[in-house]
Formats: sequence, structure tokens, C-alpha cells
Amino acid sequence: MSTATLKDLSKLCIHTITTKPWSLEQAIEKYSKKGIKGISVWRQWLEEKGPVASGKLLREAGLDVVSLVRGGFFPGRSAEERQKAVDENKKAIDEAAAIGAPAVVLVCGALPGQPLTESRKQITEGIASILNHAANASVKLSIEPLHPMYADERSAVNTVKQANDICDILNSPLVGVAVDVYHVWWDPELHREIKRCGESGYLFAFHICDWMTPTKDLLNDRGLMGEGCINIKGIRGWVEEAGFTGYNEVEIFSNRWWEKDQDEFLEAIVNGYLQHS
Amino acid sequence: MSTATLKDLSKLCIHTITTKPWSLEQAIEKYSKKGIKGISVWRQWLEEKGPVASGKLLREAGLDVVSLVRGGFFPGRSAEERQKAVDENKKAIDEAAAIGAPAVVLVCGALPGQPLTESRKQITEGIASILNHAANASVKLSIEPLHPMYADERSAVNTVKQANDICDILNSPLVGVAVDVYHVWWDPELHREIKRCGESGYLFAFHICDWMTPTKDLLNDRGLMGEGCINIKGIRGWVEEAGFTGYNEVEIFSNRWWEKDQDEFLEAIVNGYLQHS
Repeated sequence: MSTATLKDLSKLCIHTITTKPWSLEQAIEKYSKKGIKGISVWRQWLEEKGPVASGKLLREAGLDVVSLVRGGFFPGRSAEERQKAVDENKKAIDEAAAIGAPAVVLVCGALPGQPLTESRKQITEGIASILNHAANASVKLSIEPLHPMYADERSAVNTVKQANDICDILNSPLVGVAVDVYHVWWDPELHREIKRCGESGYLFAFHICDWMTPTKDLLNDRGLMGEGCINIKGIRGWVEEAGFTGYNEVEIFSNRWWEKDQDEFLEAIVNGYLQHS
Repeated sequence: MSTATLKDLSKLCIHTITTKPWSLEQAIEKYSKKGIKGISVWRQWLEEKGPVASGKLLREAGLDVVSLVRGGFFPGRSAEERQKAVDENKKAIDEAAAIGAPAVVLVCGALPGQPLTESRKQITEGIASILNHAANASVKLSIEPLHPMYADERSAVNTVKQANDICDILNSPLVGVAVDVYHVWWDPELHREIKRCGESGYLFAFHICDWMTPTKDLLNDRGLMGEGCINIKGIRGWVEEAGFTGYNEVEIFSNRWWEKDQDEFLEAIVNGYLQHS
């Protein structure tokens, strides 16, 4: 794996949750001042001003909105629950359109005790049933495989292979994959499945962060690029070989970093991005 | 997946670490009184009396020693480190022979930042270099694939498929696989790879416990059978279909349970075993 060093910030995108203490306005201001071009917006950040006014702010700042995060959570114990999820996903698609996000990231969902095979079926059906809505809004859907440690209640889709397989079944130019190094770095089939993902036209998004040793919390102890053990450069190389030319999205959930001064964190993100991504 | 209910304790084995507060003598006494036939001994439990005297105690109690836990941790940054690991594994093999354990469980190892492919190569070489020693001692080696959340520093072998692949390479009747539901329950290829494991003669051991939602600690928050979301009965069915007739080994690391009265815990283990395994 040999990969060219990142020389500037032209492909850097940050998820609003990465700098969780900042409001949408603060994030827009701080990212812009730093020369960051891309932003992925979590839905909670649209609650204050609503999607339309938030979209206006984002456009005026000249930021590229890369993704709306997140839809998904399709599995449900009853048809009513699953319909509720479908409705919520349509709402997410509308929000994405309002802020100019070309895609919604899908954390597909799982229910403790429900067979994973059943959840995967419900996920596939759930995505299928929002495809028309997505087409009308010109919004794409990015299936994000989640680390197997989230298979109990967050996602029954845990490898790029599984995400590719669902894309094959749905066979729509609107459905693709978001590859997040945190979730997939351990996978012995990663290189092959990233290649397949790119060749099939499914490679919609690429997320970066790092895996801490030890990891103290299953959810909120992600590392900044360079702090952990993931070969981010190598995986970025595979993604680029597979034809990906989009943003490198920094998505870090970290109680440790959220407690610190967020300006310092943003500085560290830029450094970690240029040196270790 | 349909599986016959477990009707008695004849196939129940407990790992000494499951009842961590108890010494080897206590564990032997308590397990025996309860009618439990199998015990897997962690190496720390041999430190007090040494392997020979410990083996005598185990034999006198009429317990079946199922495994010695654990060898492995083969990857090293230098040839010296790797040789040290090999020597330590030979010592573990000798201890297994001394206590009458037919097999040593291998937690294969990983080093943060070392490519997983390199660690897997070192693991394969490490096992190869202890095969003669294992043959002379008539002790088998059970590769235990570990959950991907341990790929940073505990094991670069994270699926049954990978363990089967290493067995194929080493091609020895002494090398097989320990399938632990905790590590592999999420794997979409699990059924197929358990089948392959059995057909190839690699299925040496089967470990049970449960996955808690939420899981609060990456290491020591395992659930008792029935407390979590793993379809233990279903996986046991696959293992038995694949020809396995050995013990169901209860291996639970749980700060929560270790803080409780261990007699009550043992009672709960027996109930969880009969009702949810």
C-alpha cells in the first residue's frame, strides 16, 4: 500500500458531531476560517434553525455539504415500527435536499435478539421502500457498515462485503456505501471488497478517524488520526485506487476530545489529517 | 436452527476465570459438588501449587480437564520477542500435559500498528514452530478467533474462516479451532465456516457466554447465557451438526458477576446453561 501524502485541505470534510460542543453556526464559522471545504451535518444540528435556514447558512459560507448523518435503523418488531422508520428516513432525505447534501448516511439498525438475517432482510426492504422518495429528491443513500461490536443494536451490516451485497440486490444508482476505517480496518477481505465497491460504482463516502489502544468506551473513544493503530493512509490508497475522488470525512466521537478546547482540537484535526491520513 | 435442549450437566465445563474469586481448590470443590464434569484451567490458577500438584488435585476430584487457557500471543517486533513467545507456548504445552489437558487454547496475538497480515504470518509461523513440542506432549492447539474489537492487541485472527485457513496451511491433526460464541456470533459466514471447521476435523472446542446490550467494558462485561442477544442454542446446533461432541465451556469475564457471591453465580450458570444454551 503506497499512497500520496495529502498536501492541502481541499478534500477535508468534518462531521459536525466531531466538534460536538459547537453549534452549526460555530462549526460553519470555524471550519471556514480554517480553510476546510467540506462539512457533513448531523440531523441534531438542524434542529435549532431548521433545514431550510441551515441550508442557507451553509451555502452562504460556501461550504460543500457532503452528507446528512444519519438515516437508517430500519429493523422493527412490528410493521408499524418499520413504517415509522421508513417515514423518518423520508424526512431525513427531505432534510438532505434542503441543505444541499447529495447523500444520507445510513446506520442500518439491529434489534437485540432478532436474528441478524431477519434484520438484514428488513434493512434491504426498508431501503427499497425509500428509493422513490430519494430519487424524487435527488438524494443518494450511503450504507455504512458498522463494526461488529455494534451488531446487537446499531447495525446488522458489519462488513463492506455485506453492504456491497445489499447494493447488488437493490441495483440502484442511488444506493452505495460509506467506508469508515473505524468499522472495517480489521477485515481481512477489506482490500478486495473496496475494489469491488469502486468497480460497481458503490463507493459514495470515506470516513476517517483512529482506533485507540486501549479503547475505553465502545461508542465515544475514537482516536484522532495518528493516535491509534489504523493504517489510514493504506486504506485511503485502496479507496483511491478504487476510483474514489470525494472528501475524506473526519468523524470522531470522543469524550476525551469533546472535553478539550475545540479550537485546539480543530488545529489537531488539521495536523492529524495532513500527517496521518 | 433447531437444537435439542440440554437435559443435564454431562457436557458442562467451566473456565476457572469465570469464577475468578475462587482458587483452583475452591473451584474444584464447588464444581464437583454441583455435578459439573468439565473444567478448563487458566494458567494463573496453576501458580499456587504448580502444574504437577494441580494436576493431581484435578484427577483426584475426577474432573475432566478440557483445556489449558491460554497460549498464543505470537507476534513480536523482533525475532527475540517472537522466540520468547514460542518458549512461553512450549511451557504452556508442558503445563497442559502435566494437568492432563488435551489442548491449549491459543489467543493468537496482535501488535498495535503492525499490519494484521504480518501478525497473521507470525502467528502461523509461531504455531508451526511449536508443533513438534505439542506432538511430543500429545497436546493439541486450539486457535480461538477473537472478536474484531480485539484486533489491535489481542488477536489478528478474528473469524472462524481465518482460523480454518491457518489450520489448512499448517495441515496438522494437532491444530484446530475453539469457537467462542462471544467472538463470532455476528459473522454472516459463521454457519458455513463452522460446517467447514467440522468437516475438516478442526472443531476442537466450543465456548459459551452472552453479549450484553449495552456492553460497558470491552473486556469484562460478558453476559451469562440468557442475559444477552446471542442465539447460543442455534450456534450450538451448528456446532453439533458439524460433528462436535465435546464440552460446552462457560467462559465469562464479568466484573458484575465477580462482585457477587460466587455460589449464587454458579447456581445461575447451571440455570443459564440448562435454559439458554
